[in-house]
Amino acid sequence: MPPRVVALGGGHGLAASLSALRRVTDRLTAVVTVADDGGSSGRLRQEFGVLPPGDLRKALAALCADDEWGRTWADVIQHRFRGDGPLRDHALGNLLIVGITELLGDQIAALDLMGRLLQARGRVLPMSTIPLDIQAEVAGLDPADPTALRTVRGQVAVATARGRVVSVSLVPEDPPACPEAVAAIRDADWVVLGPGSWFSSVLPHLLVPDLADAINTTRARRLVALNLAPQPGETADFSPENHLEALIAHAPQFHADVVLADPSTVGDAEALQSVVGALGARLVVAPVARDDGTPRHDPGRLATAYWRIFADLTEEPDTARRGGEQSIGGRTGSRWH
Amino acid sequence: MPPRVVALGGGHGLAASLSALRRVTDRLTAVVTVADDGGSSGRLRQEFGVLPPGDLRKALAALCADDEWGRTWADVIQHRFRGDGPLRDHALGNLLIVGITELLGDQIAALDLMGRLLQARGRVLPMSTIPLDIQAEVAGLDPADPTALRTVRGQVAVATARGRVVSVSLVPEDPPACPEAVAAIRDADWVVLGPGSWFSSVLPHLLVPDLADAINTTRARRLVALNLAPQPGETADFSPENHLEALIAHAPQFHADVVLADPSTVGDAEALQSVVGALGARLVVAPVARDDGTPRHDPGRLATAYWRIFADLTEEPDTARRGGEQSIGGRTGSRWH
Repeated sequence: MPPRVVALGGGHGLAASLSALRRVTDRLTAVVTVADDGGSSGRLRQEFGVLPPGDLRKALAALCADDEWGRTWADVIQHRFRGDGPLRDHALGNLLIVGITELLGDQIAALDLMGRLLQARGRVLPMSTIPLDIQAEVAGLDPADPTALRTVRGQVAVATARGRVVSVSLVPEDPPACPEAVAAIRDADWVVLGPGSWFSSVLPHLLVPDLADAINTTRARRLVALNLAPQPGETADFSPENHLEALIAHAPQFHADVVLADPSTVGDAEALQSVVGALGARLVVAPVARDDGTPRHDPGRLATAYWRIFADLTEEPDTARRGGEQSIGGRTGSRWH
Repeated sequence: MPPRVVALGGGHGLAASLSALRRVTDRLTAVVTVADDGGSSGRLRQEFGVLPPGDLRKALAALCADDEWGRTWADVIQHRFRGDGPLRDHALGNLLIVGITELLGDQIAALDLMGRLLQARGRVLPMSTIPLDIQAEVAGLDPADPTALRTVRGQVAVATARGRVVSVSLVPEDPPACPEAVAAIRDADWVVLGPGSWFSSVLPHLLVPDLADAINTTRARRLVALNLAPQPGETADFSPENHLEALIAHAPQFHADVVLADPSTVGDAEALQSVVGALGARLVVAPVARDDGTPRHDPGRLATAYWRIFADLTEEPDTARRGGEQSIGGRTGSRWH
């Protein structure tokens, strides 16, 4: 049986992870941030008071199969209206999610119905049952005092903040987790956190109390997939170890089993290893980026990396020779294969 | 093999006809008026310059099967957004039709894709490839001169005109027919016209030159399904024979094989027979209305009537005794069974 996998994140990062994971398992659940306040999602959230649908839609599209039906419906739900009228830029899938939710009176049932329509290779769930806001403490916005912190509210504002995000929190502070997401995490074999916008899409999962509790206490193994590049605004100049330090700072109880990094991102291997060790994890360095130089994951390579990690093949002596894959032991001691 | 049937009309009347026809044949094509300018359709037409999608959507919903998938997706596409924001009252199916058309750049391909999604029991086509306007000459709008004619433009205005519609025309006058609709009519065994809003949904098909030519010259047999009640505004106080007279006035070349009427609508049988005869048709009087007293077709009864007509069972001597169905011969002489 393929492993039961829960992938947590939001936006393009989660979509990349799901595109890879659906090649590895058909027992897949996506848990998606619901704090977006920009664009089509922001307008729908304002008009209807619903969960912002954009990241849910992106996850559904990423779970579409690579066949004619899947490609067609992924294109359909991702399509944005043109022109300059009231519908401009609304993604068709956002309207479907909101409309079906209104019709059924149940956002989980609406997402499940969308999944059936698309023949999605997994289930998409929101991290919380209510729309959330991200709030960040940002340094460097005051030219007179670079260390002064300012509070920035809203996912768009945080993701595009010109300063350095120091910490994030949710508004409300103690939002209800989606019970189906909690159950999926408790039943999983693997929980995958990231990649994605670190402060606005990845860390928020660990700030929803019941979700964090499920993540921290599940018997599933935990994998942190690091980003391929710092994100201007949110994480400008962040090294991989800075990302993990932010994770530890926001969720001191969180421990991981594996941290996955692309070789191109590893600068100071010892520093990274040290933070990975603090998380209780083993570092797997494997080529997961595209060849074209853009900081985007290659779904096939990421799928291979996930598959090897889930199958526990990353420590085999001939691994590095065959696939260029390297593992730096965490709990088991630091070593290169 | 079940007969190849093309049903022409628009709005609720066409939907009633399709709900019945999909029980009789799986080789079914709906050809739909595209002159609506009100509500969600009117707004979308204005925003995008597209075919008004509302009647196309209603036809698709009517072709959904009576199983869980069909009922679910019919409900989804018929759902209208609530609230009082920019999306208010937009039917989800309208947005899908417009969005998918924008994505594919082809309205026929978009309707076919919608049909696949819904597992629709037939194909839905527009009567023209461009959005049209209805224009009517209306009497009785001038209190000082009840015979004076005024020109009323737009389907909503025509359908709700307080006077008496004398004639309708299309703007533009010579619109292009949908080629797939023309081909379907030429290949059909039966062409069914009506029921529906007579001036704004039924007659317009005979005003599109290439469509009218196909209807008039196809080797298919032609059935006119009469309405169950006059329509306030459009056809207030219209008898069944008035409906047929309007048909003849607008399309002198049109001949029918069968005119189908519910017994409750037949007042002056001889007058009706006379007009039916002028159309070259045979009158079939069969119970097709619901029992609840509303002037709505019962899909099961209408299906039975269509089935008997297509199977040419309406002239059997024992028909009237078994089903209360009556046929008044047209070409073959007037007689009651």
